[in-house]
Amino acid sequence: MSKPFLRSKTALPVAAAGVAALVLACAAPDTSYRGAVDRIRDAGLAGERAFTFLERITSVGPRLTGSPQAAAAVDLTRDLMEELGLERVHTEPVEVERWVRGDVAEAEVMAAGARSAVPLEVCALGGSVGTPVRGLTAPVVEVRSLEDVSSLGAAVKGKIVFFNRPMDRRNPDPFAAYGGAADQRVSGASTAARHGAVAVLVRSLTFRRDRYPHTGMLRYEPGVLRIPAAAVSTAGADRLSEILIEERDVEISLRMDCRSDGRVLSANVAGELTGSELGREIVLVGGHLDSWDLGVGAHDDAAGCAAAIEAVALLRDLGLRPRRTVRAVLFMDEEFGGTGGRAYAASPERKGERHIVAAESDRGGFAPVGLAVGGSRGQALERVSRYASLFRPLGVAFIVPGGGGVDVGPLVERGAVPASVLLNAQTYFDVHHSALDVVDRVHPRELEIQAVILAALAYILAQEGI
Amino acid sequence: MSKPFLRSKTALPVAAAGVAALVLACAAPDTSYRGAVDRIRDAGLAGERAFTFLERITSVGPRLTGSPQAAAAVDLTRDLMEELGLERVHTEPVEVERWVRGDVAEAEVMAAGARSAVPLEVCALGGSVGTPVRGLTAPVVEVRSLEDVSSLGAAVKGKIVFFNRPMDRRNPDPFAAYGGAADQRVSGASTAARHGAVAVLVRSLTFRRDRYPHTGMLRYEPGVLRIPAAAVSTAGADRLSEILIEERDVEISLRMDCRSDGRVLSANVAGELTGSELGREIVLVGGHLDSWDLGVGAHDDAAGCAAAIEAVALLRDLGLRPRRTVRAVLFMDEEFGGTGGRAYAASPERKGERHIVAAESDRGGFAPVGLAVGGSRGQALERVSRYASLFRPLGVAFIVPGGGGVDVGPLVERGAVPASVLLNAQTYFDVHHSALDVVDRVHPRELEIQAVILAALAYILAQEGI
Repeated sequence: MSKPFLRSKTALPVAAAGVAALVLACAAPDTSYRGAVDRIRDAGLAGERAFTFLERITSVGPRLTGSPQAAAAVDLTRDLMEELGLERVHTEPVEVERWVRGDVAEAEVMAAGARSAVPLEVCALGGSVGTPVRGLTAPVVEVRSLEDVSSLGAAVKGKIVFFNRPMDRRNPDPFAAYGGAADQRVSGASTAARHGAVAVLVRSLTFRRDRYPHTGMLRYEPGVLRIPAAAVSTAGADRLSEILIEERDVEISLRMDCRSDGRVLSANVAGELTGSELGREIVLVGGHLDSWDLGVGAHDDAAGCAAAIEAVALLRDLGLRPRRTVRAVLFMDEEFGGTGGRAYAASPERKGERHIVAAESDRGGFAPVGLAVGGSRGQALERVSRYASLFRPLGVAFIVPGGGGVDVGPLVERGAVPASVLLNAQTYFDVHHSALDVVDRVHPRELEIQAVILAALAYILAQEGI
Repeated sequence: MSKPFLRSKTALPVAAAGVAALVLACAAPDTSYRGAVDRIRDAGLAGERAFTFLERITSVGPRLTGSPQAAAAVDLTRDLMEELGLERVHTEPVEVERWVRGDVAEAEVMAAGARSAVPLEVCALGGSVGTPVRGLTAPVVEVRSLEDVSSLGAAVKGKIVFFNRPMDRRNPDPFAAYGGAADQRVSGASTAARHGAVAVLVRSLTFRRDRYPHTGMLRYEPGVLRIPAAAVSTAGADRLSEILIEERDVEISLRMDCRSDGRVLSANVAGELTGSELGREIVLVGGHLDSWDLGVGAHDDAAGCAAAIEAVALLRDLGLRPRRTVRAVLFMDEEFGGTGGRAYAASPERKGERHIVAAESDRGGFAPVGLAVGGSRGQALERVSRYASLFRPLGVAFIVPGGGGVDVGPLVERGAVPASVLLNAQTYFDVHHSALDVVDRVHPRELEIQAVILAALAYILAQEGI
């Protein structure tokens, strides 16, 4: 495009009309926080400080639960919060399971008549047991679902089950498409093991066709034999599927030395702006400090941590101390089981505290498009909708019921109102849980807008209650 | 994030509630096109064909108006439309001015006491005259606005005027921030020349701080001496500004061999799905085929061309022939003056035709967030808003007054209803008019969603009228 003047003329009425439409749909508008929100926006967008926090958090490398890097991230973010002048900065202990990926994750396909083996790009799924040291070799059976395995029954005995149902590309909502395919990763191993399979390969959960395996947690069912489970890249999965059509007597050799390594002590990190009147009523903003270990967890979830820290730091810098406390909490161990979220909610430190809102950021550092608030509670949604016109210029085009997540779940069970900034996440699963989740994939300005919205939302709710 | 099931539970009601809120705000919902829109979505999102069109269009290289590459793009897209089975595929002549960038664009800063010159990354602004062959050297004066130049008056005589007002980062709308800074690029040269300046440097229009100059059209005022005008990278502009504070007697040497090269014959490209009943009533979808020449114009505007072609091709493939014609038009010469848009509207071929809707895509290939329709005409907006619930799952969270652009402007003046898909364009100006506007910056799925929305919108409006 070339003619800026023509464009800018249309740009402003468009945004204004969007506000009008949204407010009509929700509740009587309240613009009494216009001045505060404008100050937060100006201070936030003048720089890109949240991104510098993300760079610092990811500088320790991948932060797998229980790893030395996760411990370093705890120290680093505690120091960062102190540097920024946050109040009551402290860590709270969390006991976590440590899983170690090891050094080896190899898979090769061999067909009866083939001269050479075809390597596949694989990685262990989180929590998987390893194979025997020399690996295991078995025939392969391709399936599309957990139900397929049950139908095959004894036919999978002694075999490697290859789960190859892609995320449904036709679904425009990438989270829904992910949710519709992730059962293979989460429950595939135990489902296959129950019928005598010796290992599973699972197609990576991404729309892209590339050579990057995407890891993620699996869940072994109690009482079922734990068999090795690996993710295979989408390109590798397609190749394997072709080989299974073209060749006969196809076997896979799989070798992985991942293992569980017992329990270790880790921590959540918290810092706040203590409320001027009702300091024990808390609006929490948070993300998770642990990450997967193939990339550096830039989107998942250094972005959420950085946005939460920046939200509180912006209020602090501007002298916007609300009546209630706004607290940033960086949770440990979201990826492996949410022990950090549970430990936080159940901690003795919560005595006398009441969390009125818990806003979890765990959908990456992308550009905001909406807000989800209040779970199924309409009142909270209505309350926040009054402020819709303040959020509209920041890209928040809708405010809907929802919010929540793994880490704040235990707080929501105890009565906190969940809230989340919804993002344009079409590219999230391109990088999610893979080596592609690196700093360059996060846009500094998009992340800062998220932090600005969080700060404004937290300030208003900490001032007004909900 | 790790727990897909928890998320997917919240994802669906969120989207559904968004629909409800939007429809309440607009008009009585009409879901009679649900089946057609679902088919378009399934066919589009199953692949990423629009992106393959973008790859083909950009394969000829940059498509500067009047260049051999622009001519090659005309042939290539005409052939592509024919391959795809579009109807009445043809080109229509457009006479355009050809401007040639040349081989040299160099600038160096020299201060009185400095040992060596500091090079600046510059490029000629589109339409600029060149410097003398050996370049020109003159003292520099930094300004923030056109008004600054008028205030300085005779003080700029014999100097190079350095326009250094950044896009306002605090504005969350990047198009508005661009519009607020672009007067320096468009009118800086003539404003400075009127007061005797010998050349201008203009800070690149981007929020990023990097070493890529961003070009774009300038407008010489009739009767004012045409002086050379160059864009300087934001990092270069910051450095130059520092030097002007730290040093005295600062001069810049500028050398550019850009030039105008007369008029040449080029063309718009069109192809359609002819309406079954009212073939001469037309819903137009279009983008511009020309581009700037530092990158390959992937976002600006191969994306818009690809989306327009894909929209018509999807309807054709699905046998969704509407009552009125849906036509894809690829306009020539948006960047240098919009001659293609004017030639199309005024062409003898328009005799007997009536354009009821003109949808221009010229904001990149990003993820859609809304629709702008009808300019200031409320009726058209209300009509489209009835179908809001069909577009909501595709990311369209709001439908507002607006739409239009340089190319469809002449059609809108003649009564066509303008329409545009609004996108999440926070990163647009990172690449806009620079060497960074390359294929890798476009996300195939985000582009395809735009094409799906265009196809659905065009189908409904070609069926129903407006």
